[in-house]
Amino acid sequence: MLNTFGHLFRITTFGESHGPALGAVIDGCPAGVKISLERIQEFVDRRRPGQSPLTTQRKENDQVECLSGLEDGVTLGSPIALLIRNHDARPKDYDSFSRVYRPSHADFTVEKKFGIRSQSGGGRLSARETVARVAAAGVAQQVLEAFVPDLKVSAFISSVHQEMGVFGGGGGNACTEGGQGGTHPQKMETCILDAKERGDTVGGTITCKVVGCPVGLGEPLFGKLHAELARALMSIPAARGFEIGLGFAASKMFGSEHNDPFVSEGGKIRTKTNHSGGIQGGISNGEDIHLCVAFKPPSTIFQEQASVDREGNSVAFKPHAGRHDPCVLPRAVPIVEAMVILVLVDHLLMMKSRRIE
Amino acid sequence: MLNTFGHLFRITTFGESHGPALGAVIDGCPAGVKISLERIQEFVDRRRPGQSPLTTQRKENDQVECLSGLEDGVTLGSPIALLIRNHDARPKDYDSFSRVYRPSHADFTVEKKFGIRSQSGGGRLSARETVARVAAAGVAQQVLEAFVPDLKVSAFISSVHQEMGVFGGGGGNACTEGGQGGTHPQKMETCILDAKERGDTVGGTITCKVVGCPVGLGEPLFGKLHAELARALMSIPAARGFEIGLGFAASKMFGSEHNDPFVSEGGKIRTKTNHSGGIQGGISNGEDIHLCVAFKPPSTIFQEQASVDREGNSVAFKPHAGRHDPCVLPRAVPIVEAMVILVLVDHLLMMKSRRIE
Amino acid sequence: MLNTFGHLFRITTFGESHGPALGAVIDGCPAGVKISLERIQEFVDRRRPGQSPLTTQRKENDQVECLSGLEDGVTLGSPIALLIRNHDARPKDYDSFSRVYRPSHADFTVEKKFGIRSQSGGGRLSARETVARVAAAGVAQQVLEAFVPDLKVSAFISSVHQEMGVFGGGGGNACTEGGQGGTHPQKMETCILDAKERGDTVGGTITCKVVGCPVGLGEPLFGKLHAELARALMSIPAARGFEIGLGFAASKMFGSEHNDPFVSEGGKIRTKTNHSGGIQGGISNGEDIHLCVAFKPPSTIFQEQASVDREGNSVAFKPHAGRHDPCVLPRAVPIVEAMVILVLVDHLLMMKSRRIE
Amino acid sequence: MLNTFGHLFRITTFGESHGPALGAVIDGCPAGVKISLERIQEFVDRRRPGQSPLTTQRKENDQVECLSGLEDGVTLGSPIALLIRNHDARPKDYDSFSRVYRPSHADFTVEKKFGIRSQSGGGRLSARETVARVAAAGVAQQVLEAFVPDLKVSAFISSVHQEMGVFGGGGGNACTEGGQGGTHPQKMETCILDAKERGDTVGGTITCKVVGCPVGLGEPLFGKLHAELARALMSIPAARGFEIGLGFAASKMFGSEHNDPFVSEGGKIRTKTNHSGGIQGGISNGEDIHLCVAFKPPSTIFQEQASVDREGNSVAFKPHAGRHDPCVLPRAVPIVEAMVILVLVDHLLMMKSRRIE
Repeated sequence: MLNTFGHLFRITTFGESHGPALGAVIDGCPAGVKISLERIQEFVDRRRPGQSPLTTQRKENDQVECLSGLEDGVTLGSPIALLIRNHDARPKDYDSFSRVYRPSHADFTVEKKFGIRSQSGGGRLSARETVARVAAAGVAQQVLEAFVPDLKVSAFISSVHQEMGVFGGGGGNACTEGGQGGTHPQKMETCILDAKERGDTVGGTITCKVVGCPVGLGEPLFGKLHAELARALMSIPAARGFEIGLGFAASKMFGSEHNDPFVSEGGKIRTKTNHSGGIQGGISNGEDIHLCVAFKPPSTIFQEQASVDREGNSVAFKPHAGRHDPCVLPRAVPIVEAMVILVLVDHLLMMKSRRIE
Repeated sequence: MLNTFGHLFRITTFGESHGPALGAVIDGCPAGVKISLERIQEFVDRRRPGQSPLTTQRKENDQVECLSGLEDGVTLGSPIALLIRNHDARPKDYDSFSRVYRPSHADFTVEKKFGIRSQSGGGRLSARETVARVAAAGVAQQVLEAFVPDLKVSAFISSVHQEMGVFGGGGGNACTEGGQGGTHPQKMETCILDAKERGDTVGGTITCKVVGCPVGLGEPLFGKLHAELARALMSIPAARGFEIGLGFAASKMFGSEHNDPFVSEGGKIRTKTNHSGGIQGGISNGEDIHLCVAFKPPSTIFQEQASVDREGNSVAFKPHAGRHDPCVLPRAVPIVEAMVILVLVDHLLMMKSRRIE
Repeated sequence: MLNTFGHLFRITTFGESHGPALGAVIDGCPAGVKISLERIQEFVDRRRPGQSPLTTQRKENDQVECLSGLEDGVTLGSPIALLIRNHDARPKDYDSFSRVYRPSHADFTVEKKFGIRSQSGGGRLSARETVARVAAAGVAQQVLEAFVPDLKVSAFISSVHQEMGVFGGGGGNACTEGGQGGTHPQKMETCILDAKERGDTVGGTITCKVVGCPVGLGEPLFGKLHAELARALMSIPAARGFEIGLGFAASKMFGSEHNDPFVSEGGKIRTKTNHSGGIQGGISNGEDIHLCVAFKPPSTIFQEQASVDREGNSVAFKPHAGRHDPCVLPRAVPIVEAMVILVLVDHLLMMKSRRIE
Repeated sequence: MLNTFGHLFRITTFGESHGPALGAVIDGCPAGVKISLERIQEFVDRRRPGQSPLTTQRKENDQVECLSGLEDGVTLGSPIALLIRNHDARPKDYDSFSRVYRPSHADFTVEKKFGIRSQSGGGRLSARETVARVAAAGVAQQVLEAFVPDLKVSAFISSVHQEMGVFGGGGGNACTEGGQGGTHPQKMETCILDAKERGDTVGGTITCKVVGCPVGLGEPLFGKLHAELARALMSIPAARGFEIGLGFAASKMFGSEHNDPFVSEGGKIRTKTNHSGGIQGGISNGEDIHLCVAFKPPSTIFQEQASVDREGNSVAFKPHAGRHDPCVLPRAVPIVEAMVILVLVDHLLMMKSRRIE
């Protein structure tokens, strides 16, 4: 259950890591919006594996096929189905550990919950499923632009392990200036490669900034914009923490420091500071939205670890095959953007149904 | 919209801070569960205002009336409506600032979103609305116990401003031992009272632990248990950050450190460490669930601040009335527990529909 | 479950027939709409019991109290909670048959489903619960008018038992001209009173017409407007059949007879005939919507009937107390209108989120 | 919107009549159920076009491909995506009438609602989309059997135009005995072929019977089993009317005739008659479920009709191409069964979450 995301702009995703295909069906997309498939492909390509020594060497072209909902590149208002075939699925690689619970993977929990689990890789819980989210967000992004042309969502790596900095963002955009601390992409890259060489993995954080968000997105109670963002971002594999605005740092401040005074700027009401991160009372206030997501180090390490098999026997476990990321961050940047975009377009449509004009 | 929370155990809440009443309607509650209204009241009483110098002096008895769904103290399977009347509503207190946007409040965003806002206090965005959530959780708690008698949810204050410690938990329960750092309730209390005296406010963090959670709660994709918890907890007024397991600290670790090896203990498969915080792949693994929520300092301070009125004129703003908390934490402890309970019971019912037995 | 109705304009109802109160919470109501409580009360009064010899003698004033969501008679965009207290509940009347399954009532099915049932009357399945729907529709009606001032929904009794005619409509409106067959209110009334005298009950049909419906309501697949109307109307207690347009009569026609040719009238595209009943492909076409609902005779008759008790023993059953309608039709007219209004306002809001303008 | 059907067993369908493909994604399917793809294909083949002179000559093999959710023929608990490619799509056939509104088709309403419509055939509103529903129901059927092996859903044609009878059912099953009136398949077939020869079309009714349904399916309020069935069945293209039990005939009866007395049969509580059609108070009572759906004659006739074009000019319209059914009934039989199955499996899962055992 719960493979559908969104209230009005709803995506339903499907597909296992080593099955025939993955995909998404978008329901609730407004009609009459021009959609470029090339731009969807570009978005998907940003998270594609095998592009650098920092990521898994699985070879997938991640070609997105659109099966419905568009005619001559314009949305019909009907469901848009997007399909991505798996090409380099290697279920055999996983044979050896189908009886062992890989530490910190979902093998144990999935098997206990469902009484069965995919014999090959993470199945539905592999990060591979995120390709479908990004494809769907490729549509959402263009719908969002049709409504709010100036809105920009950009994420970047703000830390790798213990190295802070700015790394791997969309490239040259204004957002990256906001990175806390200095910019040390070299150190970050080295940190990932060092871990990889040792058969180890590293975690880190991704920061995301939304510029040009209209005032009024978000619903007062359970649908506070940052609550919806929190769920969206914590649903990305390996996410462990979420912050809006100053996040945990806000918990160490006085109200007199944290409050954002209102000012009038050229006839427009704005806030002097933006400690709230663009959201007040769960509703966007027009200032830049800032959020940060913490990712744990990937669970697949090429070192021997203690584990048990299904019968509870102790085993020493070390994968000798399978292709994995030493760090999720480089490929998670577009995924973070994708989830933020999906939340924003959903709340934009919701806002339209909330006032009588 | 989105005043309903939950997928199968669904609560819909209503009510404004200074309107006639607040309440919740629970739909999807299993039939045949014994519910003690006294226990609901006890839960609600834990968040009641006016109980200590640390909290607002608004006087509300927060008496919960059950309007439907129970007969002779047993659930009928029909909706359970809970009503709490407001007694000490003072809309007049807010007259003076109905034209001024209070800094870091939702006045501005609500007015822009809806074209109208409650003239008195935070309306729907006041922390007062959480009384309805806690009342509903008072039912959920008893349903949860009927299914899983040993499950316990306990939250405590883990930091106030820059003071770490353990404070304000349910009292004497085992969970609080897990608090990071020492236990300095005195310092924390002093910190709040000092701020109050200066007309200022402070933030902090609340940690919550779930003991005895069954294996298998949570859905693999968008319904990962920690994603659902994140949304639930970030929907509490003033929440700014969320962590599951080691949270942001996990982002600074190597995989070889963070992974939780499986061990067999008395025929039961467990993990040796619990860095995952009881959730792997979005599904509970039977270990204790650990989570932490950061709260910003309350926005209402009794100091002069810069703001603007509806016409955009600069004004110096200082509230001379209204009763407010200098720190949300003492009253947020039961609210955190309430939201966690609501997520757990919802996923418990969901799990029941997921396997054919 | 499923005590919530609607997708964007969502009502959640609660309350048992002989419990303390009934009510509805509306979520998703647009902000800034003027709502007259008097008009809600008028709508509710139309279905109130005890108003004529044709209906149950239970005395309820059905006073609607609004607990939230309005300020100075204008919607805030937050949930609107409406409360109706029960005054003439007489659970004792039902004591004698708490162990017997009343024929064609829900006693047996509810008990088997939930393992428990309300000891007094139909509980949640009593027609009394519809008071909450009508109250909610009293708000919906005013929201609908704010968007589409010329839209009118009017239902009338089109047959009682075997007597066809027009009876009990809102009075004097144009719709009633559409009644099939002649107008014999007298015969219908006599038919009901005759049955009542014999301790028996009668069924009949209600026809509803919507004038001034905008083009475009309804969603192509599972949300076809007539499919949504069918569910809404079949959820009224005692409903047994539903027709849109010509209904079952259409099944006996040739396409060449049934098709509605398009014509241009004063620059407006209309259909020459309206066999489709205002809906084509599940979407309103701007012509009048016609629908018809069949109601079975009420199950409570004051005659001896064969039944069994919980242990399966045969018993002769005859209620000696309880106040019941000899025919649901007179009170069902406003309920039919209420359900139609709730569907229309929901789809109106949905339409707003479907196009980019 | 609303391309998703179901509450717990949820299907989302996609695809246009003349686009590249159609399909369905099932979310919420329990894990561990054996699924035969051959049986899905058999179900889909029953509605396949081109199988007799009674149906459209469009040639589609309707091969169902399963893209996810199964491993070694067993459900994983993850979404099951089913894909059916279009092979004989001929968008060109529709060029000539892309500017004319075909009478009683959805051309006009879709264009007004969405501001755009598929240039070829009915797009999303073509009966072709039902192939995806039937494929999904092919899974649902096997899930239902895994829980309730004895449950059988069988539909048959109970009238064609003005001919009553029993026709086109699954063949030789016990259900068809229940058909009202005599059995005149020959007359029915002749009636369809006669109309076809004249370029005309006919309507009719389909009756469906569920044998072996467990007690307890359906929810008391808006989710009454027959209300859910009504929506499901009225969402089939060309459906115009719905009856449960005696339907409209019940409206002409006295309560003393219509009530179903309870009897005890071999320790099992049953009803002596079954006028309620297996559902009392919206909940299944274990007796056979009977329902009937009225279908109008198809809108595409090969005769000249009056219509208008987009500019409102009068035009004489006669299609000279396109392949259409002279009567929907033969192919609608499996579609009716499919929708009934989808409702039953959904409510079965729902029932599991409603009691604490």
